[in-house]
Amino acid sequence: MARFVYPCPLRWSDVDLFRHVNNVAYLRFLEEGRIAWLYRRGEFDRVAEEGVLVVRHEIDYRRQLQWRPEPLPIEMWVSRIGNGSFAVSSEMVDTDDQGARTVYAQATTVLATVNLAGGHPTRVSPEFRAFLARYTDED
Amino acid sequence: MARFVYPCPLRWSDVDLFRHVNNVAYLRFLEEGRIAWLYRRGEFDRVAEEGVLVVRHEIDYRRQLQWRPEPLPIEMWVSRIGNGSFAVSSEMVDTDDQGARTVYAQATTVLATVNLAGGHPTRVSPEFRAFLARYTDED
Amino acid sequence: MARFVYPCPLRWSDVDLFRHVNNVAYLRFLEEGRIAWLYRRGEFDRVAEEGVLVVRHEIDYRRQLQWRPEPLPIEMWVSRIGNGSFAVSSEMVDTDDQGARTVYAQATTVLATVNLAGGHPTRVSPEFRAFLARYTDED
Amino acid sequence: MARFVYPCPLRWSDVDLFRHVNNVAYLRFLEEGRIAWLYRRGEFDRVAEEGVLVVRHEIDYRRQLQWRPEPLPIEMWVSRIGNGSFAVSSEMVDTDDQGARTVYAQATTVLATVNLAGGHPTRVSPEFRAFLARYTDED
Repeated sequence: MARFVYPCPLRWSDVDLFRHVNNVAYLRFLEEGRIAWLYRRGEFDRVAEEGVLVVRHEIDYRRQLQWRPEPLPIEMWVSRIGNGSFAVSSEMVDTDDQGARTVYAQATTVLATVNLAGGHPTRVSPEFRAFLARYTDED
Repeated sequence: MARFVYPCPLRWSDVDLFRHVNNVAYLRFLEEGRIAWLYRRGEFDRVAEEGVLVVRHEIDYRRQLQWRPEPLPIEMWVSRIGNGSFAVSSEMVDTDDQGARTVYAQATTVLATVNLAGGHPTRVSPEFRAFLARYTDED
Repeated sequence: MARFVYPCPLRWSDVDLFRHVNNVAYLRFLEEGRIAWLYRRGEFDRVAEEGVLVVRHEIDYRRQLQWRPEPLPIEMWVSRIGNGSFAVSSEMVDTDDQGARTVYAQATTVLATVNLAGGHPTRVSPEFRAFLARYTDED
Repeated sequence: MARFVYPCPLRWSDVDLFRHVNNVAYLRFLEEGRIAWLYRRGEFDRVAEEGVLVVRHEIDYRRQLQWRPEPLPIEMWVSRIGNGSFAVSSEMVDTDDQGARTVYAQATTVLATVNLAGGHPTRVSPEFRAFLARYTDED
């Protein structure tokens, strides 16, 4: 039900010579968001034993983004949980005082669970599934 | 009919601490391929007057890629031409002596044509359309 | 007299396969610090009319740095002001409750002032000199 | 006596919004050159058992560099060999048909030898010293 929100700091070097944030940098922001969400949270310490491997990205760029000192909020949630993979959907979005949203990009990333030691595919463990379930958008 | 092939040099820094090429780096490789294809070719000098803006990526990672000194071949072709946008499909692939193909990733990028001066959307010009048509896969 | 302190956010991708922050990333941190200091501060709005160009870096790596969610403090000050250039010295340093300092790197960067329009060398303007003078370490 | 020359491919993303190759990218080029020189060469297979750690860089930027499809030649040689460290000097330089040299940057990097397993400092081994000695500039 909940979305995880990561306020992602931009870097001046994320900008390319067209003076906007380069399209590739957005995937770097998604990586930072995943790290903040899946690895840093005390809520699910055991996640470190299971690795995740990016299997697919799809990303739509909705609006050009300029460099700014304020972090870019990334809202992330779990849009699918399978046996050996799950999908994370994301919106990079500013929200103003009236709640109006300016969406810069929308993305969905499919991640496979792997054994960190050997890199082999593993099933999503019950503990990790329970963690992910807290961030699904479904009722 | 033709595919453009760009032999993309890897960098040691494309590798992350999981010891494989990081998923974000692949989009950088696609950018390098587009630059080599759309900007450097003498075949279509006027392309520089029309800019292109990445509107969407989708990419499937098929196989983990290790760093290596040899470039990674990226095959690129035009999979759609619209009024104000077009799609470039790509395969990152090694081909052995017998012609067997090892595919590392497959991607499709949608690009909008924009006026370089103002960044406004423009129609795909007839000259650019003719250039792109040479790289469509359709018969 | 004052040092400017920039709390620099690290990224997971700053780490290389030796599992520490890669040496090149430190220069990126210095760039972020300079941007925060020289461009964002309301104190000296006119600085944007004068560009600065990196002419030289020297950096000593004192201790390996691990990735962490907490920003890395970068202390910066002006170590020399010349006619057409100045030097910024930096320390990347953690300070504990007792004031003990753990220094990760020390650097000095020489910057030339240039005309932003044409990129030509210019003299350090009186206004910019006054701004810089506030951050010299001399008594 | 010999210099190792690495023709370093540039990337479009090495350019920043000032339309020249960003100063940080040069250190990435040096890294690529070291990898090509110290790790890939069949001449000294055992080097992989000894790791090297960057301890210091100094780099002077002599001339702005534009993006180009042709690789940038980096000439590298050993300027000092100590007990537990050595220095590599580099010039990024174009040479024309008449032998005239255009130098973009000059750098010296100090590297410490470390045990790859534990990351502890080690002495430069006799084999590695012999390898390095082939690239000193001294007579």
